[in-house]
Parts: sequence; C-alpha cells; structure tokens
Amino acid sequence: MNTQQIITNVDNIDAEQLQRAKQIITELQKELPEYIARGHGPFLAAIYQGDKLIAKYANTVVIDKCSNHHAEINTIRAAQAELKNYDLSKYNLDLYVTAEPCVMCVGAIMWSGIRNVYYGVSTPQVEKITGFFEGFKPNWFDEFKKLGINVYGNIEPELGEDVLQQYVDNQNIIYKPSR
Amino acid sequence: MNTQQIITNVDNIDAEQLQRAKQIITELQKELPEYIARGHGPFLAAIYQGDKLIAKYANTVVIDKCSNHHAEINTIRAAQAELKNYDLSKYNLDLYVTAEPCVMCVGAIMWSGIRNVYYGVSTPQVEKITGFFEGFKPNWFDEFKKLGINVYGNIEPELGEDVLQQYVDNQNIIYKPSR
Repeated sequence: MNTQQIITNVDNIDAEQLQRAKQIITELQKELPEYIARGHGPFLAAIYQGDKLIAKYANTVVIDKCSNHHAEINTIRAAQAELKNYDLSKYNLDLYVTAEPCVMCVGAIMWSGIRNVYYGVSTPQVEKITGFFEGFKPNWFDEFKKLGINVYGNIEPELGEDVLQQYVDNQNIIYKPSR
Repeated sequence: MNTQQIITNVDNIDAEQLQRAKQIITELQKELPEYIARGHGPFLAAIYQGDKLIAKYANTVVIDKCSNHHAEINTIRAAQAELKNYDLSKYNLDLYVTAEPCVMCVGAIMWSGIRNVYYGVSTPQVEKITGFFEGFKPNWFDEFKKLGINVYGNIEPELGEDVLQQYVDNQNIIYKPSR
C-alpha cells in the first residue's frame, strides 16, 4: 500500500489563487455525482487558463473500455486538441482534479506542459475509502518542484471524501485492477 | 537525471521465451525507422498473446498533437479496443517495446492487466542518446514484481541504440518537453 503522506502546500499560494482553487475543486466535487450516474469513474479533472475553462473530463475507463482513460489523461488530451498543441507549457495552465493523480497521471502531467496542479482528496484517503491502488510515486510533488511544476494538495478534502464514500456506498465500483 | 541501473532479468525466463522476445524486439527495432520516416516518435510497442499479435503502435505525440500518445499508451488502448475489455489480465498478454517505459507508461501498464513486459534499450541509454527525460520511477521492476508483473529489460540493446542514434543524427527530434 501507499505510505505517502498527505500533503498540503496551500501556504505557498496567494489568497486569490487559493480562493479560486477551493471554488473550482468544490464545483468539480459537486458535479461529480452526475458523471458517476452516467457511468463515469469517480474522478473529475479540469484545465483552466486563469478563470477560463479549457477542458473538463471525468474518468471514462469503464464506458470507453480503456484503462488509460483516467480523468487527467482525458482532460490533457482534450486541452491539447482544443489548443492544437502537444506542449501546453506556453499557455500557463492549471490542472484541477478531485483527487491526487495516480502514477500514470503524474507522468502524463509531466509531459503535458501543465504548470500548476491542484487536487482534492489525497491518495491515502482515496485508497482507504475506495480500495483502489494508486501506484508508487514517492515524493512526486518534490520531483515536480524540480521541474518547475507546482502541486497543491488536500483542498476541501471532506467534500471529496464524501463523494467517494457515496460512490462506495452505492456499490458503484464495478472494476478494480487485480494487480 | 535518472540514476536507475540498467536491468537484465533474462536469466529468469526459459529459452523459448527469451528467443521469442529477442526475435520480436529485433523486428520492432527494424520496423521503427519506417515509422519515424512517417512522422512517428522513435518508440514502437506490440502486445502479443503467445505468438499472436494483438496490437502494435508507435509513439504518435507529434502527429496526434497529444503528449499522452506514447507507444505503450497507444498499444494498450488498441489492444483493449480489439478485445473490448479495459482489463487485459485474463488474456495473459506480453508487451514488447523498443525502449524502457517512462513513468506514465509504467503506470499505464500497471492498470492495463499486461502480465509480462520485455523492453530493448534501458532508460539511462535512451536519456544519454536522445536527451529525453523519462521521469522518476525508482525500482519500478521491483514494484511490478510485487504486483505479479514480470519485467525483462535490456534485450538486444545495441540494435535499439543504433536506431535511436540514427534518429538523433538525422535531426528528427522536433520536440523535447522543457520540463
């Protein structure tokens, strides 16, 4: 199991940034049950340029029959299609996601050119509530810092934990990788 | 930079398996220049069930304008579309790839249900030859072992290194993530 600590880096951002992050994460958590009701997995991501929404996507692993299709992967693909560029670095974009990225999505964010990452529920809590395994990614936020990508975690976590708990209580989990 | 060791696990497989792996990796390396000539990135992957090819795909980051579209990601998506299943674990599949997977693809392989991974050129050599950065993935083969996924690396490396060197010499690199 993942022994990584819950991180909070929100002391390092200004009040306006933090307020926007809390607002967007809250909106994503509130929208997420509608996506779940339509067969999506319980994670939702959005890419913004300042206040402007560029792309938003939920996890579509089950409905697309593709294990790659986590929320962050889908949203990066959609943003790059929207901006017609495989390198988002010049657009100074922010990724918001309802839970901490798994190891695959950590890699996808690195290659995308996203500059800032904001997430809701931390991996230890996701794993505890859902039983999902998120992969080994020790100190990924420190590795991101070396690359100039900022990570801010554990934003409005109770709201996100409630959504995940409801997902479990409603017996929506139809798939867990056996690995 | 990645300080990971070159690994070779080929003493742990039987002669037939090793012979097949060498043959398939050799074929992939020999086909790769044709893909590069058509604008693909310099990595090619294939998923087999025993001797049967299920899916084969090169890196399409530049031609698809999508940073997610590494060879392994593309090939997993294609195999899952072919088999109409987001979980490949019951098919006992092998992934062959011309070079060691990056951190994103390590995660994608974990979630796909692939059982065995065979690769050609190791990450330190890829990074040395091309200048690409493959991400932090310390001891990923040990982590895979815990999950029951076998990894065999450094198969026919000279052939793959020559293909990558030729790619560099021909000035085919038009994109390197600035992170």
